[in-house]
Amino acid sequence: MKTSIEGFVIDLDGTVYKGSNLINGAAEAVAMLKQLGKRIVFLSNRGNISRKMCHDKLGRLGLDIDEEEILLTSTVTARFLKDYYESSPVWVLGDQGLKDELEAGDILMAERPELAEWLVITLHETLTYEELNDAFRAVRHGARIIATNADKTFPRDDGDSIDVAGMIGAIVSATGREVDIVIGKPSQLMAEAALNVLQLPPERCLVIGDSLESDIRLGKKAGMQTALVLTGSVSMEEAEASHIQPDWIWPSLADVTSILAPAEKGLQR
Amino acid sequence: MKTSIEGFVIDLDGTVYKGSNLINGAAEAVAMLKQLGKRIVFLSNRGNISRKMCHDKLGRLGLDIDEEEILLTSTVTARFLKDYYESSPVWVLGDQGLKDELEAGDILMAERPELAEWLVITLHETLTYEELNDAFRAVRHGARIIATNADKTFPRDDGDSIDVAGMIGAIVSATGREVDIVIGKPSQLMAEAALNVLQLPPERCLVIGDSLESDIRLGKKAGMQTALVLTGSVSMEEAEASHIQPDWIWPSLADVTSILAPAEKGLQR
Repeated sequence: MKTSIEGFVIDLDGTVYKGSNLINGAAEAVAMLKQLGKRIVFLSNRGNISRKMCHDKLGRLGLDIDEEEILLTSTVTARFLKDYYESSPVWVLGDQGLKDELEAGDILMAERPELAEWLVITLHETLTYEELNDAFRAVRHGARIIATNADKTFPRDDGDSIDVAGMIGAIVSATGREVDIVIGKPSQLMAEAALNVLQLPPERCLVIGDSLESDIRLGKKAGMQTALVLTGSVSMEEAEASHIQPDWIWPSLADVTSILAPAEKGLQR
Repeated sequence: MKTSIEGFVIDLDGTVYKGSNLINGAAEAVAMLKQLGKRIVFLSNRGNISRKMCHDKLGRLGLDIDEEEILLTSTVTARFLKDYYESSPVWVLGDQGLKDELEAGDILMAERPELAEWLVITLHETLTYEELNDAFRAVRHGARIIATNADKTFPRDDGDSIDVAGMIGAIVSATGREVDIVIGKPSQLMAEAALNVLQLPPERCLVIGDSLESDIRLGKKAGMQTALVLTGSVSMEEAEASHIQPDWIWPSLADVTSILAPAEKGLQR
């Protein structure tokens, strides 16, 4: 069966950039896909930045894309709250970027932790004890917990660093309350949000990412094609040993050309 | 059987004081025990202060005792490391008080997180993300985890606040490594340290505290007599419903007089 791929769901951290550095060939690959008229959405588990911040960063790295082509877990968290809990006040444990994105999504913020019905947790790189304690008090007073994602570690320029799982673990361990919802990949919520941007059936779409657990699993669950890149968290050995098998394994995003030219010869499945 | 109680193992938070306030009658009760020539050790799960800090606080509250009569989990952690891992460099996630106590105990500190063989975790009321990340990196590079205690919450003057369990949860959730040792009550280590100060057989000693899970359990495990006070975390209803039954339940530490005078009549078991 030949399936022409028209939509691309592309991960960011470890696929397009790593820390503050662009991954070799990533900008050219994206520019080429756009030139061919392909539809693209960048789908990231980052929940501590806003789409505006992400768009600015990608612009600095040389990627010319629209803000609407970016979906972060902060974006999808805001939409989820707006769709299902519009009148519920929210407290945030996380960076300003999440607060900005929730504000852009017109989400009701609680005035005090004790008044919150939801606590939203994301990475908080300027976390203080008092902020942790406010979040603790929100949950002790009945707030349910949404996590933008549950990643344990992220690659910072000075090395792997503690991610959202640390912030979640602090609150869950001290309150005894579990997380109600994790928004991030490989959730159905993220897959639906991506397909909604692309406006294509899943089988015409390809997920490209560096994580078997989040990117490839999301693609498989949603019926999309999948390509793992080795520029991030997974080595070839780990990929081959995994029970999750992508349709393709590429050294990097630049290898997306292999399935496009000439005459999309690589698309046979 | 009549057993004369000669040694008193007395909890601090919720038994002698609450936040920065002395519990009514506590200072007089301690003074009276000392006047009767009883041996006393204050045994607290606090690990984020040093004995010197605790001694100063008790002095300000009107308790005239020796620093050697105080045992904190910071004290016992330092002794444990000195006794069993003298040459292992240590990294600390916690308040300055723990660092002071480890220094007083002549413990080897690691120069960088990556060089630590042990991470010691206690409450950290001025926690920052970077400190959390340093602790995360220590464990990622192989450090094992000691927690001074695993309390979920402590009573601060402005309300219940997130305790060591939050700091532990952050590191455990993000690293996937479990805590190797929890020093705090009801551990055998704390009971032994207390009996070592008192120099008495356990059956001649009485543990007085506000926690069934830490104070009363420690006493029962070690063969000491036990008295629960209702000035802290447990109500009479909770005490009566518990599977852990102390020998006595008292409104407060002041009621210790009931088993002493006249002629120690309350001591029949």
